[in-house]
Amino acid sequence: MSYFRPNIEALSGYVPGEQPQTSGFVKLNTNENPYPPSPKALEAIRRAASERLRLYPDPVATAFRNAASEALGVPADWIVACNGSDDALTILTRACLSSDDLLVAPTPSYGLYRVLADIQGCRFEQRDWTPGGGLSEDFCRGAKLAMVPNPNSPTGTMVRPEELLELARRSEGLLVVDEAYVDFADRSCVPLVAECERLVVTRSLSKSYALAGARFGFLVAQPHLAATFLKVKDSYNTDAVSIAAAAAAILDREHFEATRAKILATRRRLEGALADLGFDVTPSHANFVWARRKTPLEPVYRGLKDRNILVRYFRYERHGEGLRISVGTDSEIDQLLAALREML
Amino acid sequence: MSYFRPNIEALSGYVPGEQPQTSGFVKLNTNENPYPPSPKALEAIRRAASERLRLYPDPVATAFRNAASEALGVPADWIVACNGSDDALTILTRACLSSDDLLVAPTPSYGLYRVLADIQGCRFEQRDWTPGGGLSEDFCRGAKLAMVPNPNSPTGTMVRPEELLELARRSEGLLVVDEAYVDFADRSCVPLVAECERLVVTRSLSKSYALAGARFGFLVAQPHLAATFLKVKDSYNTDAVSIAAAAAAILDREHFEATRAKILATRRRLEGALADLGFDVTPSHANFVWARRKTPLEPVYRGLKDRNILVRYFRYERHGEGLRISVGTDSEIDQLLAALREML
Repeated sequence: MSYFRPNIEALSGYVPGEQPQTSGFVKLNTNENPYPPSPKALEAIRRAASERLRLYPDPVATAFRNAASEALGVPADWIVACNGSDDALTILTRACLSSDDLLVAPTPSYGLYRVLADIQGCRFEQRDWTPGGGLSEDFCRGAKLAMVPNPNSPTGTMVRPEELLELARRSEGLLVVDEAYVDFADRSCVPLVAECERLVVTRSLSKSYALAGARFGFLVAQPHLAATFLKVKDSYNTDAVSIAAAAAAILDREHFEATRAKILATRRRLEGALADLGFDVTPSHANFVWARRKTPLEPVYRGLKDRNILVRYFRYERHGEGLRISVGTDSEIDQLLAALREML
Repeated sequence: MSYFRPNIEALSGYVPGEQPQTSGFVKLNTNENPYPPSPKALEAIRRAASERLRLYPDPVATAFRNAASEALGVPADWIVACNGSDDALTILTRACLSSDDLLVAPTPSYGLYRVLADIQGCRFEQRDWTPGGGLSEDFCRGAKLAMVPNPNSPTGTMVRPEELLELARRSEGLLVVDEAYVDFADRSCVPLVAECERLVVTRSLSKSYALAGARFGFLVAQPHLAATFLKVKDSYNTDAVSIAAAAAAILDREHFEATRAKILATRRRLEGALADLGFDVTPSHANFVWARRKTPLEPVYRGLKDRNILVRYFRYERHGEGLRISVGTDSEIDQLLAALREML
């Protein structure tokens, strides 16, 4: 007898992008923010480094819920604080998916969805994007849970929030819109959660708030659903330090807007320069750019890595290959472009 | 159709002890350490409050694994860092338990085990302690996973590590020894993990290291099992700040020993004083005391609460009721005893 479930024995775990623990890399592979977090968040962490850490944290992270409520304009009890948005996605699968149930996700998209289905031991189906980068009317058909990154990774494309609302209305199960990158786009589904209880949104503070190291995300759902997700999460899933940091970060709109503006400007420049180098660049709504090319890209990925420049190489069976390049600082992007000019 | 699984609809979530977010309470209800964490841990947190938080943390918390390896004398790859030991228990249930599988735990013990079984949607069985506070030879019978807190909560009793090793040897599934409180006892099962691959130990930094607010725990398993648990955990389940704090804390043996000695001395005094007040006190190996009485205890719990003194009241269908009183500072225990003398 194995000690593990058959689906766990068979599981290929999720492989995150490389996280070298040494410096000296131009790190454009995991969509981290090239700018520091809000000074107010860092100050909140220093303040939290106190005797009070001997006490358990607030199980529902009230300070963060109130701050996020103020920043996003949804009631606090619609918000469930999570240990990164991966924790939110885990809670959703554990709450909704039994072994006969179906999780659907578009392809290509975030590779974690399949891993979560495999861990849960439920059915999983990938459904193609339409040629225009949208989702077909029956995208959610038969699914207890559908997960759609919006903007999508690795392509950076975006579906209009109203279309997602329409899909949720037509669905029997929940439609989870994974908005890890939405702060680099123009519109969010959060204001639409009130329109349909089957629309659930997950968010991350890793990218737009530059707090990947602090692990903080949340989900937004109508309160009767949020109450069930609270039952399923680990009792103390977020810690006192990150609650304080996240609450301070989400209220510092000035820092957020300034960082965002710099990233969007650099993204425009990166898109143009890659096109000039002969890449087929998908217009991005995220903090990365999806670049494809007629000639093989794996050697380009490796050549960049040899120069200590990390980008992410993805290859899909039916959708070909591409490089997902995070939007770094202007100087990092200059180094990337210089290396590409040398190689191509 | 419900959006949730039937077991989730039916779930009574775990109810942690009260966590008032205001001060003014003598808080003896959730077994927090009354003394502050290591100053080195607090300094590590302040140092971690840097620009580097924009980066993802080390997915496997190498700095902590190395520190724990040094402190505990087991190889680093036997250690899986977790977001509190509740995360470790969650990972174990997700890795091992399908719907037909059985989780067993002794009763009375930690109420979370049942909740984890209910979330996983597997079978759950509580098995009585023997009258002497031990476990019968066939305790693990039929179980894919058995969970035993050692020392136990709420009773503070302890099973000898060799007996647990013997149970693991006789088991078909894994025996998880939950050592959240072991630092207040004399012996751990960690050195025995090498003797039998079915013995897995979970640990917490919440109590003995006074880091409940930071959420950090870990599990110890033979490395081929640890590798599977790594696949199942969230990719970035621990954050950069708590990794730094936990690594510093576990290496500060001097602070650990000094705090532990104070708590053990106060525990002795509390046990004696409660016995003098007519309580039936179970000799404790943890940082709390289990106190029973011939007369009803719920009014005592309420009377203490009216005086802003929080203790935990447990009532079991077949095992009666008791108060679980955390070992606070000497001054907190004096306040508790004064209140009890007034009330009884």
